[in-house]
Amino acid sequence: MKRISLAQGNGGRLMQSLLDEIVFPHIANEYLNTLTDAARVPTSKRTAITTDSFIVTPLRFPGGDIGKLAACGTINDLSVSGARPEYITLSIIVEEGFPVEELENYILSFAKTCRENRVKVVCGDTKVMPSISNERPALILNTTGIGEVLRDDLSLTSIRDGDKLLISGPIGEHAIAVLLAREDFGLSGSLVSDCDSIGSLAKTLLQLDGLRFMRDPTRGGLLTVCHEILLGTKIGVSLHESYIPVRETVKGACDLLGYDPLVLACEGRLLAVIAPEQSQQALERLKALPQGSDAAIIGSMSKNSDQVLLHTAWGGERILMPLEGDPLPRIC
Amino acid sequence: MKRISLAQGNGGRLMQSLLDEIVFPHIANEYLNTLTDAARVPTSKRTAITTDSFIVTPLRFPGGDIGKLAACGTINDLSVSGARPEYITLSIIVEEGFPVEELENYILSFAKTCRENRVKVVCGDTKVMPSISNERPALILNTTGIGEVLRDDLSLTSIRDGDKLLISGPIGEHAIAVLLAREDFGLSGSLVSDCDSIGSLAKTLLQLDGLRFMRDPTRGGLLTVCHEILLGTKIGVSLHESYIPVRETVKGACDLLGYDPLVLACEGRLLAVIAPEQSQQALERLKALPQGSDAAIIGSMSKNSDQVLLHTAWGGERILMPLEGDPLPRIC
Repeated sequence: MKRISLAQGNGGRLMQSLLDEIVFPHIANEYLNTLTDAARVPTSKRTAITTDSFIVTPLRFPGGDIGKLAACGTINDLSVSGARPEYITLSIIVEEGFPVEELENYILSFAKTCRENRVKVVCGDTKVMPSISNERPALILNTTGIGEVLRDDLSLTSIRDGDKLLISGPIGEHAIAVLLAREDFGLSGSLVSDCDSIGSLAKTLLQLDGLRFMRDPTRGGLLTVCHEILLGTKIGVSLHESYIPVRETVKGACDLLGYDPLVLACEGRLLAVIAPEQSQQALERLKALPQGSDAAIIGSMSKNSDQVLLHTAWGGERILMPLEGDPLPRIC
Repeated sequence: MKRISLAQGNGGRLMQSLLDEIVFPHIANEYLNTLTDAARVPTSKRTAITTDSFIVTPLRFPGGDIGKLAACGTINDLSVSGARPEYITLSIIVEEGFPVEELENYILSFAKTCRENRVKVVCGDTKVMPSISNERPALILNTTGIGEVLRDDLSLTSIRDGDKLLISGPIGEHAIAVLLAREDFGLSGSLVSDCDSIGSLAKTLLQLDGLRFMRDPTRGGLLTVCHEILLGTKIGVSLHESYIPVRETVKGACDLLGYDPLVLACEGRLLAVIAPEQSQQALERLKALPQGSDAAIIGSMSKNSDQVLLHTAWGGERILMPLEGDPLPRIC
């Protein structure tokens, strides 16, 4: 089995061969020029920029891998900010000893997701880190996404009292799928990560002028997004537990392991805040797409409170505090 | 001493506090919105994009640190591609246990370099990695730069037979300064890294229509750039050893340690290819700037050969092969 060597990170011929072999063929496009220091691309007047580093253990999990994740994560951040994803960069940070074929598989997965979303990989970087432990060699991917701003008005400050909160599907599947894939718990299941592009979900909502704000609840989960909304609007967020879609397997795993689905990361869900008079229309638009079949209106903005409040399934009310320490094993 | 904890990487309140304390105050600008998934910025029709991950040991060295390096590296890549650097992203990948104050110092250094170059930090990301060894906790920075394309014609394919090669200053200082800072060799010296922005050097050359191509000789050094030029043009590169500026301390360290200055990384030098009739003018322009006082014409393009040829100081000729394995300790 061929493995990554330190010499492949020195900027010389070996690195060029590696990239020519396992990277460039998969991401070729008219803007990717492997011989310049920067890509030159056409842009419009208003451009959205986002960046993210991806660390996940294991690197492959049911429903995805680090390559798909690195593409979706950045494409989704552009999508929820009201932009059309156009370009993406790929920085590979790999530890010496990493299997070359496995790396190529992640690149393939990254490239496929970019292609499906019509996003062009325009530049990249590769660094090889010396191995410092006996653990499995590490791989970190960093991506920066660039896109055309379609809606410049989406913002926390656009949110009004009475606005509705929508989620495009069940929460926590990515986090639990990754945790189960670690096999640290002796649990296994058929759960698949929700890791996916939410571009089409965002696009259909962009057509509604009552749309105020969108976000994908990744690290910190739905709860963290609700607190960001509270912080940015000073308007209370009121959630209805029984409306929040959570699959039975996620509920079961959470019960067993003592986690709260509300803080679990999703990687293919969209949270939208929308004017009440367009919330039903928004829900129908989401439900019309395969990825949105389980979409739900899960709460609303309420200036009567200055908290994130959960109306429990049993008719009670619970104040949800922001995620503080780290209640769950790190998945990213 | 406060140290980075895993909980500060979970996307919750602790991470927000950390960023509010040691990152955002230093990089504030009108486009940095800490509450959205993507920054929205004005762009022009043609945009240059580049990305780079920065790994350096030690994190601080004479003349710079990883923060300055992460800013200069990306600003320089935009500059040499004929663009005006406008925006930069900052992804922090830090191992738990890393001293918080030290991290802040690198952010300060990054921010200062960006400010000096009028580049705005528009978005970022922070990930905390679990510690996997007893070594000093690691820090990796990734930056993506975005800028307005000022000259779309700079390219390897613009290079012609007879064109001259210029370097803006002595080579190899960054590599040797970093190596000496490691103190692995029992050597020490007054050598300072050349780590710096080359924006003003690039800008002054952009005004010459005879300018064909620019690059900063980082990983792989001047030799690797010459081979990229050879590969991209199929025209031979002819270098004159005695014209290539190398400081005595770099020469001395290379003699002692057995390295070739031609493969050593610079982080603040510019290599330009320019039409022969404008090469003197270009040299004068570089020399008129403090960073270019030691600039020199070091060679020319020659279709009489299909090699990178070094005319030695002793009147001989040597074919320079591309950097193959890794002849020098890794500095990045």
